[in-house]
Amino acid sequence: MIKISLPFVLINFKTYAEATGKKAVRIAKTVEKVSLETGVCIGVAPQFADIAPVVGSVSIPVFSQHIDPIIPGNSTGHVLAESIRENGAKGTLINHSERRLKLADIDAAVTRAKEVGLISVVCTNNPSVSVSATALNPDMLAIEPPELIGTGISVSKAKPEVVTDTVKLVRNVNKKVTILCGAGITVGEDVGAALRLGTEGVLVASGVVKAKYPDKVLLEFAKAVTKSERGHR
Amino acid sequence: MIKISLPFVLINFKTYAEATGKKAVRIAKTVEKVSLETGVCIGVAPQFADIAPVVGSVSIPVFSQHIDPIIPGNSTGHVLAESIRENGAKGTLINHSERRLKLADIDAAVTRAKEVGLISVVCTNNPSVSVSATALNPDMLAIEPPELIGTGISVSKAKPEVVTDTVKLVRNVNKKVTILCGAGITVGEDVGAALRLGTEGVLVASGVVKAKYPDKVLLEFAKAVTKSERGHR
Amino acid sequence: MIKISLPFVLINFKTYAEATGKKAVRIAKTVEKVSLETGVCIGVAPQFADIAPVVGSVSIPVFSQHIDPIIPGNSTGHVLAESIRENGAKGTLINHSERRLKLADIDAAVTRAKEVGLISVVCTNNPSVSVSATALNPDMLAIEPPELIGTGISVSKAKPEVVTDTVKLVRNVNKKVTILCGAGITVGEDVGAALRLGTEGVLVASGVVKAKYPDKVLLEFAKAVTKSERGHR
Amino acid sequence: MIKISLPFVLINFKTYAEATGKKAVRIAKTVEKVSLETGVCIGVAPQFADIAPVVGSVSIPVFSQHIDPIIPGNSTGHVLAESIRENGAKGTLINHSERRLKLADIDAAVTRAKEVGLISVVCTNNPSVSVSATALNPDMLAIEPPELIGTGISVSKAKPEVVTDTVKLVRNVNKKVTILCGAGITVGEDVGAALRLGTEGVLVASGVVKAKYPDKVLLEFAKAVTKSERGHR
Repeated sequence: MIKISLPFVLINFKTYAEATGKKAVRIAKTVEKVSLETGVCIGVAPQFADIAPVVGSVSIPVFSQHIDPIIPGNSTGHVLAESIRENGAKGTLINHSERRLKLADIDAAVTRAKEVGLISVVCTNNPSVSVSATALNPDMLAIEPPELIGTGISVSKAKPEVVTDTVKLVRNVNKKVTILCGAGITVGEDVGAALRLGTEGVLVASGVVKAKYPDKVLLEFAKAVTKSERGHR
Repeated sequence: MIKISLPFVLINFKTYAEATGKKAVRIAKTVEKVSLETGVCIGVAPQFADIAPVVGSVSIPVFSQHIDPIIPGNSTGHVLAESIRENGAKGTLINHSERRLKLADIDAAVTRAKEVGLISVVCTNNPSVSVSATALNPDMLAIEPPELIGTGISVSKAKPEVVTDTVKLVRNVNKKVTILCGAGITVGEDVGAALRLGTEGVLVASGVVKAKYPDKVLLEFAKAVTKSERGHR
Repeated sequence: MIKISLPFVLINFKTYAEATGKKAVRIAKTVEKVSLETGVCIGVAPQFADIAPVVGSVSIPVFSQHIDPIIPGNSTGHVLAESIRENGAKGTLINHSERRLKLADIDAAVTRAKEVGLISVVCTNNPSVSVSATALNPDMLAIEPPELIGTGISVSKAKPEVVTDTVKLVRNVNKKVTILCGAGITVGEDVGAALRLGTEGVLVASGVVKAKYPDKVLLEFAKAVTKSERGHR
Repeated sequence: MIKISLPFVLINFKTYAEATGKKAVRIAKTVEKVSLETGVCIGVAPQFADIAPVVGSVSIPVFSQHIDPIIPGNSTGHVLAESIRENGAKGTLINHSERRLKLADIDAAVTRAKEVGLISVVCTNNPSVSVSATALNPDMLAIEPPELIGTGISVSKAKPEVVTDTVKLVRNVNKKVTILCGAGITVGEDVGAALRLGTEGVLVASGVVKAKYPDKVLLEFAKAVTKSERGHR
């Protein structure tokens, strides 16, 4: 398993025009620069077709945005864990709110990720679903209240209880899974708040990708991480 | 629009282990070699993440296996036409029997393909669905009776009426769309038969990818094409 | 096949609280009353579980909101055409914008409807998709621009060209299919306009079900139909 | 909440021809007869459209095969908990292997079932998914290895460890949820074995519905239940 140091910041490129094709590579390089300068572990999750070019251009961890719960075979148009892994991705989101999966398929996708050596980050929408997902033994969880995604209203400020309840309930049954949170994170203070609530990192998309100056936002995030970086693994 | 010369042979890599990652590149090179030697236009459709490495290694047309009917935005884990196009693909399958789409989404995906300059190949399962798909104005149709896919029993021999009915009904309403057929094609004779039934090419997967000697099978296919290459555009 | 006289008005109950359970029966009785008084053919499409009680209470045509493209067998939780038919429904919507189907499944569902003697009403979202759906030989089409559904802004006024283009393009290839339109229809004038644009009826939901006085709205609709009832089959 | 006495036998009618329309009512009467004669609690899960006629004909508990995670509104062709409840169902299957749901939707469907007073039976495919589902607080779980469904090879004999692991892992985190098992159950001995493995009932489909003499099979099941009926709630 690849080492991701905590706290971990993961930038989801979604299918934003600002992070597609050549622009995916460009923004990944910006992320890498901030990561190298600050020592904070920051990963990126570009679109499937952009994984290889991004991996070829930067040394930070690259994630897929999704894998299908399939083994090699007759699955035209699906996303095979092996193809993601062979092209250099270190991990994958599973069950993002924009790509929800059936329960049995999350289970199978987490298993497939383990089999090929991808870090699995299962996204969830509330505390009870987070506990439910934990039972499937993913490497990481990312709790994101869907109603806040893309709003610029930070989960760590608008719904801190969703984060603290998730941390409390999940830790009751599992000490190992890494807990991230996301939704509406746009400034350093949102990241600091997320870490103070007990998470070990954040999942961010538009807050960085659609920012006027992504490098400035990333630097702010990294500073917030560095500031809080005590008492964490 | 990129020129594809007819008859056209399109090799679908599906998610076969034999055509994933480095092996996708290797088999694409074999395809390119046969195409250059014989002058027959042969394209490949690797997995999303393998598109960039394959495009970087060969000069034959590369297709995606699927695109989603989305515009740039909040669509984590989906396949944006632009990302496929920017990574060098020339076209895309839409609605393959292993990745069926809703009718309104096929319409939107064909439109998206046109907008970014991707050749659209809509897959269909019977003559009436073929006429239905034709109304959406794709560049190509690929009729494949799903019950024969992967069987090694060729559509052109086992169900020639499916092909001839499709050609007849589609030509009634549209003279321009390129008609391919597929399912169970494994030997040169299957390709020859498909062309004699009125199609302008074939869509093949396991017949090549899982063959003991893909280069031999491809050569056979190319010879069958060359032999029939009269009276076609 | 059951006779539906044209122009035809079909009321979709959706899953509105105002048309669920006992209230489905109540509103169906109101519809029946107006239909009997005015002689205009008006049908209702309640939820699956409400079909039997509604059929038991009224003599107007009852439609299902959806059927699955399945034959009897291992399909827990799906909607079998036979179960709809046996409980007295005369027809079914297929591919409503809130229950879109894959293209091959629309084809199979239309076939299943024919097999069990249900009138099929395939819903579409634009003129080219309407032509596409026509190729599958349903009994009726209902063109509804999804962006107007539930808005109270009538398709017949806001987007008349969507309706006239649909009528023109569909009639080019098929003289028999009955063409309805829907979306945003709330007053009698919307119905009159729809008929003048060349349709043979309307598909309405909230305009009736969520109206303060459904009986008044229905009477208005019926008057608009009666007024235009010349030159139609 | 309606009382279901344990052990509980639930007969899933699926979309079998033998249990559609009038035949759904007939087989439900057979089930009721056996239940009344033996005192064993046996419920039936007919198709949506058959719920009202079945409820009108028998006094045993009637379940739906599925509900959608929706509230009343714009959801044409979906299954609203209220419509199921108002037509007399006492409970519902959720996430049957033939109608798998997304994780967040299982959570929402269980919540909707509670809100309207339906007993929720969440189906699962393996022990870890069972623990996962338990976190969503359904009333009942039904563990069914999908590869055995409809085979006549009983889970309680072919894969007893799937059942015992499920019971053990689920009981670690939840003492209250009722645990059923299913798949391949065709004779009384299968039911007896299921109860001895720690479950509190069974979910059966073809074993009863497609039996030559459903009444005989049901009697055998009931005897197996009666025999084991010690030490249970």
